Amino acid sequence: MKNFLKANDIAPVNKLVAKGLQHKKDPFVSQHLGKNKTIGLLFFNSSLRTRLSSIRAAENLGAKVWVLDAGKDGWNLEFEHGTVMDGTTAEHLKEAIQVMSSYCDVMGVRAFPKLIDREEDYSEKLFKDILHYSKVPVVSLESATRHPLQSLADLITMKEVFPERQKLKVVLSWAPHPRALPQSVPNSFAEWCNAADWIDLSIAAPIGYELAEEFSTPATTTSDQVAAFENADIIYTKNWSSYSDYGARPHVAGDWIISAEKMALTNNGKFMHCLPVRRNVVVADAVIDSKNSLVIQQAENRIYSAQAVFAELL
Amino acid sequence: MKNFLKANDIAPVNKLVAKGLQHKKDPFVSQHLGKNKTIGLLFFNSSLRTRLSSIRAAENLGAKVWVLDAGKDGWNLEFEHGTVMDGTTAEHLKEAIQVMSSYCDVMGVRAFPKLIDREEDYSEKLFKDILHYSKVPVVSLESATRHPLQSLADLITMKEVFPERQKLKVVLSWAPHPRALPQSVPNSFAEWCNAADWIDLSIAAPIGYELAEEFSTPATTTSDQVAAFENADIIYTKNWSSYSDYGARPHVAGDWIISAEKMALTNNGKFMHCLPVRRNVVVADAVIDSKNSLVIQQAENRIYSAQAVFAELL
Amino acid sequence: MKNFLKANDIAPVNKLVAKGLQHKKDPFVSQHLGKNKTIGLLFFNSSLRTRLSSIRAAENLGAKVWVLDAGKDGWNLEFEHGTVMDGTTAEHLKEAIQVMSSYCDVMGVRAFPKLIDREEDYSEKLFKDILHYSKVPVVSLESATRHPLQSLADLITMKEVFPERQKLKVVLSWAPHPRALPQSVPNSFAEWCNAADWIDLSIAAPIGYELAEEFSTPATTTSDQVAAFENADIIYTKNWSSYSDYGARPHVAGDWIISAEKMALTNNGKFMHCLPVRRNVVVADAVIDSKNSLVIQQAENRIYSAQAVFAELL
Repeated sequence: MKNFLKANDIAPVNKLVAKGLQHKKDPFVSQHLGKNKTIGLLFFNSSLRTRLSSIRAAENLGAKVWVLDAGKDGWNLEFEHGTVMDGTTAEHLKEAIQVMSSYCDVMGVRAFPKLIDREEDYSEKLFKDILHYSKVPVVSLESATRHPLQSLADLITMKEVFPERQKLKVVLSWAPHPRALPQSVPNSFAEWCNAADWIDLSIAAPIGYELAEEFSTPATTTSDQVAAFENADIIYTKNWSSYSDYGARPHVAGDWIISAEKMALTNNGKFMHCLPVRRNVVVADAVIDSKNSLVIQQAENRIYSAQAVFAELL
Repeated sequence: MKNFLKANDIAPVNKLVAKGLQHKKDPFVSQHLGKNKTIGLLFFNSSLRTRLSSIRAAENLGAKVWVLDAGKDGWNLEFEHGTVMDGTTAEHLKEAIQVMSSYCDVMGVRAFPKLIDREEDYSEKLFKDILHYSKVPVVSLESATRHPLQSLADLITMKEVFPERQKLKVVLSWAPHPRALPQSVPNSFAEWCNAADWIDLSIAAPIGYELAEEFSTPATTTSDQVAAFENADIIYTKNWSSYSDYGARPHVAGDWIISAEKMALTNNGKFMHCLPVRRNVVVADAVIDSKNSLVIQQAENRIYSAQAVFAELL
Repeated sequence: MKNFLKANDIAPVNKLVAKGLQHKKDPFVSQHLGKNKTIGLLFFNSSLRTRLSSIRAAENLGAKVWVLDAGKDGWNLEFEHGTVMDGTTAEHLKEAIQVMSSYCDVMGVRAFPKLIDREEDYSEKLFKDILHYSKVPVVSLESATRHPLQSLADLITMKEVFPERQKLKVVLSWAPHPRALPQSVPNSFAEWCNAADWIDLSIAAPIGYELAEEFSTPATTTSDQVAAFENADIIYTKNWSSYSDYGARPHVAGDWIISAEKMALTNNGKFMHCLPVRRNVVVADAVIDSKNSLVIQQAENRIYSAQAVFAELL
């Protein structure tokens, strides 16, 4: 059974990007695929874009869709095996996933990392269990280490804006944030860019914020943000917490916000961010409100990213 | 781009009333309008009637529908411009509305007033921003100063009950309530009645509870509830807080509950209320449970009010 | 008007079981029934299986569906009659049910008992009011004393696993749980088994945990769990609180968990539970994870149980 958790999982990156752009051109042409099918969406965490774009994608494909907010709509779930469940958890993940996957034909799941135990998060323990118990294909709506539908939407957007470019100079830049955030978006973005022959990725991150090498390489990482921006076509920005000192937010010297001054160093570069974004912390108003900002186009392309993936799995 | 926020916004009041009654007669005849269309519903506040009647209206028209409870399902939104977002808000309204409106063809929004700053509420600052950022037509599901789908349903109901009447004597009466409520329902009701040539509106409210003149006039306002009721065809009841002493609940002398005794002064008058209603505080059981009570019919007509508006905008 | 609250309510038990199995064989064959129909689902309590299986059932039948979580999405409801509503409740059940039933063609409602006043719970006061005010057929999604869609799914499952058996030896066994639970599932299961000529039911429960006789008889009840298990084809397990000392959890001597050792006493018996289940409190991992466990099949059959009932009422 096919599942969608990372780059090249159900189809090569370039093929999925092309499919996404096709769905955008003609969103309703594949409604036969979803006939009498239901896509279930299970959220362990908040969601706006993922929730609504997945709903829209499912309906564009002629499928039905249900959404369950775990814990809020259903029961507190137990994740450990062999536990004596005499505490606050009322249902085991084992039953919950088997049952929910009985009620749909494809199941999307979002579960953020706890950012406490790196080994547990990076082993994707929870998703491995979900894949094991699900009776239907599973689509990651963001896991502990990756956010593949976002990355696919990002590549769709870059291809849409630069359709003919042989080699796009893309910089993934860390930016400040008041809270400790997962590495899933930057991990995934690096993974997908590294898998695309038309993207030349480099990463700018403060010392102590280097991504796990399994995701970052072969792209190079520098702590000189200004140097990295020179001649860039795309500045893709995101905050993340430390991988080496897992989940921590080590002190950062200097100024990492994405400002108009820094954007001026690029090759008339486009600004990208997965949203939600904290204005004037991550990025200055002047940048995100400029004509070079692609953030809304990225968000809209979440529909076609989900549509390309659901279409493969239905 | 057309939006629906107040009387005469997308069509003359009388035309929309007639359309609503047509949709009630034949609810499924316009399903071609909604084909491959999605209506998004964004709630910043609780809703029962508006939520369910809008869903039903969308589906009667053959459209898909999604619902998002802001803050609960998504992220805490920032409404101020130019803010450094290093606090509790994770996403700016600017992105949220642009993105959500990418996921639908018509967007309904409910946002109650805060009842603190009259100028802010009565400028409809939030809705102006929403209209500015939305890529699709916006339908007010109740704003700081108006509740137009309710008023349309109210006029549909009065026309349905008195189809031939040239001039209907309608009294909008204030009634008691334990909490400070917005003026949106009475404002809107007055606005729509004043715009309908077949309605003769007068308003009964305690001193200090006069509505803003932009909404109330040309109808007259009296603080003599008993006198106002004489010969009325319709008693439309609602509590609201003070406009002059904004959001306050100045002391009210005498008894303003809608009782059977007061209804006996009318011309066998009908009782109307938008619901939810507090029994035996706003209205006596004997009145709301009588044959002259139209509250359930009003609520049912919320479907056809929404259907008339969505149909114009799809 | 027909409603579905208990065994034999809209059709004989055996006929509904047969219908459920037909729907499972051909889930999409009755889509004409749901055309332009909406099934409303009103939850006063949490739900996973009931929510999702009812949604799926409605959609399999071609109907639309809405879900409302009372109190969370809408307003705090008042249930008492004649109250002066100047407290925390904003809307009376009387209006809420009349209005919600205006927005659908069949309405499902879930409302657990409070387990405080036995007479109130066992009179099904709330459901009687709901039936009284609803304009459309009502389906119980679990009431104070019964969970009929679960029981129907349970009988569908037993018939599916033992299609030819003339007489199935079924044991309903109490099991431990850290909280006081309603009697609705065991009441209902006993009621449905007692109404099915192909089931020979007996009940094993500790002293003080005997079910109300209106549900349990003519099945016999014993407090000797081990003796009851001998030669059983089915062990149906559930915790419940006391009926005689209403809602209490009197001390239980000995060990009532469903273990592999106890299952070995049966006739290679199947294990059933309605879920959610607390592992290693109610049942040992070795039992629920064994090939003889039917819990996932039961949960899946919730779709066809709901589909059989909705199809009768549409």
